[in-house]
Amino acid sequence: MPSEFDLIKKFFDRPARSAALGVGDDAALLRPSAGMELAVSTDLLLEGTHFRAGADARKLGHKALAVNLSDMAAMGAAPRWATLALALPAADEAWLEEFSKGFFALAGRFGVELIGGDTTRSTAQGAVPGAIVICVTILGEVPTGLALFRAGARPGDDIWVSGQLGDAALALAQPGVAAAARRLDKPEPRVELGERLRGIATAAIDVSDGFAQDLGHILQRSGAGAMVEYALLPRSDEVRKIQDEKLQARLLLSGGDDYELVFTAPQSNRGELEALSAELKLALSRVGSVQAGEPRLQVLDAQGRPMAVERGFDHFAP
Amino acid sequence: MPSEFDLIKKFFDRPARSAALGVGDDAALLRPSAGMELAVSTDLLLEGTHFRAGADARKLGHKALAVNLSDMAAMGAAPRWATLALALPAADEAWLEEFSKGFFALAGRFGVELIGGDTTRSTAQGAVPGAIVICVTILGEVPTGLALFRAGARPGDDIWVSGQLGDAALALAQPGVAAAARRLDKPEPRVELGERLRGIATAAIDVSDGFAQDLGHILQRSGAGAMVEYALLPRSDEVRKIQDEKLQARLLLSGGDDYELVFTAPQSNRGELEALSAELKLALSRVGSVQAGEPRLQVLDAQGRPMAVERGFDHFAP
Repeated sequence: MPSEFDLIKKFFDRPARSAALGVGDDAALLRPSAGMELAVSTDLLLEGTHFRAGADARKLGHKALAVNLSDMAAMGAAPRWATLALALPAADEAWLEEFSKGFFALAGRFGVELIGGDTTRSTAQGAVPGAIVICVTILGEVPTGLALFRAGARPGDDIWVSGQLGDAALALAQPGVAAAARRLDKPEPRVELGERLRGIATAAIDVSDGFAQDLGHILQRSGAGAMVEYALLPRSDEVRKIQDEKLQARLLLSGGDDYELVFTAPQSNRGELEALSAELKLALSRVGSVQAGEPRLQVLDAQGRPMAVERGFDHFAP
Repeated sequence: MPSEFDLIKKFFDRPARSAALGVGDDAALLRPSAGMELAVSTDLLLEGTHFRAGADARKLGHKALAVNLSDMAAMGAAPRWATLALALPAADEAWLEEFSKGFFALAGRFGVELIGGDTTRSTAQGAVPGAIVICVTILGEVPTGLALFRAGARPGDDIWVSGQLGDAALALAQPGVAAAARRLDKPEPRVELGERLRGIATAAIDVSDGFAQDLGHILQRSGAGAMVEYALLPRSDEVRKIQDEKLQARLLLSGGDDYELVFTAPQSNRGELEALSAELKLALSRVGSVQAGEPRLQVLDAQGRPMAVERGFDHFAP
């Protein structure tokens, strides 16, 4: 069986470009660019919690990086470097090969370098094999003063959503829908959009726990309320076709894992955002507006009546 | 039960000092100092693999950060910022309080700020409860060009070791030895030593997998061999007292988890290193020398005969 060191070398030791030193020392060494701030985010994915046992390794490699790229997008940062810590029940070369293919394919698209990591064995508990654990930390750069925070929304700002909501949650609710399954397994982080929103958006967040909950974080941090028109929430044909209206509303308002961006911007930027949408070939939908007052979200139905909004995903909810 | 967001706020949301923005946005935002390179390292600790179920939460908080600080020390970097990703079987407030106490006590000693993280629930598998998973990523700064690499050792350099070897492995072999148990549970990362070795040492590594194996990494990367005198390896009274000579040799040469520094330095720096040892009140032992030739470690016994060296810890060894 190959040793830990052989495995790291075989699958993850790629020549560093901008990093002063790559994988294989006690730490990676980077040279941050002058005039830039550094955005840092970390995400932990666990077998059994975030993905099922036997999940496709290549898709996992994609997703583990994608959720972190999405955090960079929500900050308006250009992703640059990543570290990867992996625990596996055994040194499974076939799994590692597939995982690294998924990871590096996405990393390559956005110029992200894998600069370091940690590989370890997860121990079996009796008859239960050790779980796969994936921890990715991402580092990105953003020109000083231009990062997008959650706290910047102002009353009167428009509320925008990229792409479509609810597909990932639909894939969990109805595993047969192939288009939705792709959205769950291979989310597309909105990295270009995030970078282009610098100076245009006043606040941004990515939809990981559900639209209502994630917009709620913007409202909390910004000290403002919001009014959203349910009919304007962007949705795929698959979600639109759902007969059960309650289910459709739940997918759109509380479904997680879409990794779209929700952001706020002054009304004066509408033209610029419409042009950006055309340029990026990415739908940007204006769904409501920021209101003065308590950090509360009101969602109105087609008749202008307030709708009940379910709480989004909470990792420790009972 | 408190939500994920409440828990993050309660235990981990501390006011950021040097970070432009702390815990609670999509990513943390840092301002790296001018003229500095950034050292980045990540470590994954798993219940069942790295610590036993029921391990003391405060000690875990210390150790999870200490192993990362040790990587900064081995690079000669000053630790500045850390992210923490945690998976727990339940939102156990008492556990989180103890863990955060251990973590922040050590972070405070070295001026490290917790800038971000991720909290999640680890799912039970049948009757087996979800495991505790801890992933810490650390970022440190080192003046450009002064980082300590594994690759810098040159024939003729002395080989040095800080502190004492083998205590952590002794604690595993003989759990009753209290002084050794402290070394295993609460390792002391050699952060000050690492920073002071800039410009003095030619290569450095921390002892996590065992002296022979970790020195072996320096030799591999430097393309040089080494001769070490077994009698010179620094050891505590507890290790010295061990009657079983094979066990004693195994602890000293192949015992992991000591988090001492092994480093190489030109003979001309002996005086400076002895003065540094006195100033830091930390033993620095000269144990051998770097040799031209193959990256092979020879350990000589008191009679000058080569000793067998067991392979150190490999996470995927059969």
